[in-house]
This record gives sequence, C-alpha cells and structure tokens, in this order.
Amino acid sequence: MALAHKGLEAKFEPMRFTEKDKIAFAHSTTVPVLVDGNVAMNESWDIADYLEETYPDKPSLFGGEASRAVTGFINAWTNSTLHPALIMCVLADIYDRIDPMDVHYFRESREKRFGKTLEEIRGGQTAALEQCSQALTPLRTILKSEEWIAGDAPAYADYLIFAAFQWCRIMSPAEIIKTGDPIFEWRERMLDLFNGLGRSFKAAL
Amino acid sequence: MALAHKGLEAKFEPMRFTEKDKIAFAHSTTVPVLVDGNVAMNESWDIADYLEETYPDKPSLFGGEASRAVTGFINAWTNSTLHPALIMCVLADIYDRIDPMDVHYFRESREKRFGKTLEEIRGGQTAALEQCSQALTPLRTILKSEEWIAGDAPAYADYLIFAAFQWCRIMSPAEIIKTGDPIFEWRERMLDLFNGLGRSFKAAL
Repeated sequence: MALAHKGLEAKFEPMRFTEKDKIAFAHSTTVPVLVDGNVAMNESWDIADYLEETYPDKPSLFGGEASRAVTGFINAWTNSTLHPALIMCVLADIYDRIDPMDVHYFRESREKRFGKTLEEIRGGQTAALEQCSQALTPLRTILKSEEWIAGDAPAYADYLIFAAFQWCRIMSPAEIIKTGDPIFEWRERMLDLFNGLGRSFKAAL
Repeated sequence: MALAHKGLEAKFEPMRFTEKDKIAFAHSTTVPVLVDGNVAMNESWDIADYLEETYPDKPSLFGGEASRAVTGFINAWTNSTLHPALIMCVLADIYDRIDPMDVHYFRESREKRFGKTLEEIRGGQTAALEQCSQALTPLRTILKSEEWIAGDAPAYADYLIFAAFQWCRIMSPAEIIKTGDPIFEWRERMLDLFNGLGRSFKAAL
C-alpha cells in the first residue's frame, strides 16, 4: 500500500515461513524486507521512513513531521495492542491454511510463543473475538467521524492498520469486524484503493 | 496548555464537583468549559478544534489536517484506554483530597459508576498500577525515540495525554510513572513548558 501510495513499481517475492534463506542477505528473519538498488531493510516502519525520505517528490506517506510522529503512536499501538488481539482470533485458522512444509515449524514456534496448544487457542476463539472488539474501541471511535484514519485522504496511518486486517482477511474466515461497524466500512474503502489492490488478494473461506 | 500554546490569556474559574450550576449556562455538567466572547463550549477536543479554527494565525495545535486526524486516534485511545486505567489507580486518593462538600456526591456517583466501594477500589490499587503500566506500552514505546509525542515540538497530542497525568499528579501520590521511564522524563519536560505552567500546580503528598 505504501509503495502504491508513492506510485512506485516493485517486484513482489512471496516466501514461506521456513524459507528464511530468501531474506538472509538482508540480515532479517522476518518480512517485510525491501530492496531498493543497493539498499536492503526490514521493519515496516523503517521502510515507510525510507520511502518518505528517498522519494520526497512523490505523495507523502505522513503529511509532515508532526503527523509522522503521531502516526508513530498508532504504529506502537498496533504492535502492542492490535496485533496481539488479532492473532488470538486467527492463529488456528492460519495453521489450517499454511503450506505443508511450514506446518511443523508453525506449530512448534507458535505453541512455544503463546504457551498454549493450537487446539487450546482454537477453543478460545470466541473469547478472543470479544476481547479484540474491545481493543478496537479507539479505532472504531475515530472512524465514526473520519473517513480515513489520516483524515481527508488515506496515508500511512491507514496502511499500517489495514495491513493487520488484510493479514487476517486472507488467512481466516473469522468475522473480526462486521457489516455496519465503521471499521468494516473503512476496510471496504481501503480494499477499493489503487484499483482494488487489496481486494486482488482473495479472502479466506 | 492549549491556551498557552496559542498564546491566549484566559481567566480560570475552578469549581467543585457539586457546583454544576456554575457551568449550566454552557449546557454542560462536566469540565472543561471554554467561554470566548459569545461562544461557550465543553469537551476538550471540541475546544482544541475551536481554538485552531478561530486563531489560525497563532501556533498550530495540530500542524495540519493529517496530524489533526491522527491526533484524534490518540484522543480516542486516551478516553477508551488511558483514563479508565488511570482512574482505578487514583480514585481513592482523589476521595481523600476533595472538598468536604463533594464527599457524599463523589462516593455515591463513583461507587455506582464502577460497581465497587471506594474501599474495594483502594484495595485494588497495586493491581491497577500494574495494569496501567501495561496500558502505557504504546506511549512508552514512542517516547523512547521521540522527544515529544508530536515529534520535534510539543502539540495537542502531548497536551491531551499530559492532562491525564497532571490530573493524577495533583490528586494522588501514587507512582504511576517512575524516574527512568521515558514517560516520566517526558512529563518532566511537559511540566517545564510555558515557564513551568504545569509545575505551578503542586503535586499531591
């Protein structure tokens, strides 16, 4: 979404969980990784900063320094609150859909990280969805009065939160947000951006 | 803080909880209330919006439309997450310090709102402080890398969160944030602004 906002073309290289050799050159074990000429980096926030600094003549991802800093708060909230709330809703569904070569790695690493079996996490999905809905309160509140998180037009604040919902949409049929919820309506608008870029990835069934 | 940022002089009129007749003319039962000429309004966010629109030649509280919208998310987070976390840490301490004429009203209204006696809330203070520290994670994260929430200079995003901490500082000796915590250091900087405006209100003992 950030690349599309900047009008930059890129080649996308998908990878499986266990194909970490694909990104070892960037000294990273996690996605996303951006390669631009001789520069390689990971971490979404650093990539957004890099794009903003390197391509200042393209549409701004932040709309100025004050907005960049305040968007940093939303990024921190997304990492500390939104992702942990979402992952408990979708983890078992992800397991059902990943490539067979990743199944063993995924179970072992996630059960260790969360201290629960995937079956226990699946059993807690209904409770997780309720907790998640609570965690979404500040987002829901602003989307009652704003069309985009960044105000009159979408910007990086929108893309960073959309990324979390898109990850869930592609990997889980769980109804985390429902028709009528201002967050659902905003996500529909996000899916329409850039000629339906987000919608071109199919929702999980 | 918003008035000081705009360089506007104002007369301040304190009120007790039960002196709601003082703000009845503004059709409000809660503070803050701003009166500017023939205009009266309540709600901090609406007051900030009003000041920004009415005094556009004074220093901006937001730094642009994108920043205003994203600051709205911080405002929603403050209302939905920060205030509920803080109030459980300080409610009993507030009770110990309010004016005798408010004691009955405060106990009755707060015990009804929270479904607990003030003594039960006091007994839960240690647990409340731990929960609060968790809730502060996104704020702590950005203040590790930013001097102000709004980036290079303080703006309304800083003032709205500072207001919550200042309210606690004046009414409770509870150590919600401690020396060494990036939030504590930021609050010190906030207290120094505008010739120590915040520090001119004494901390609770």
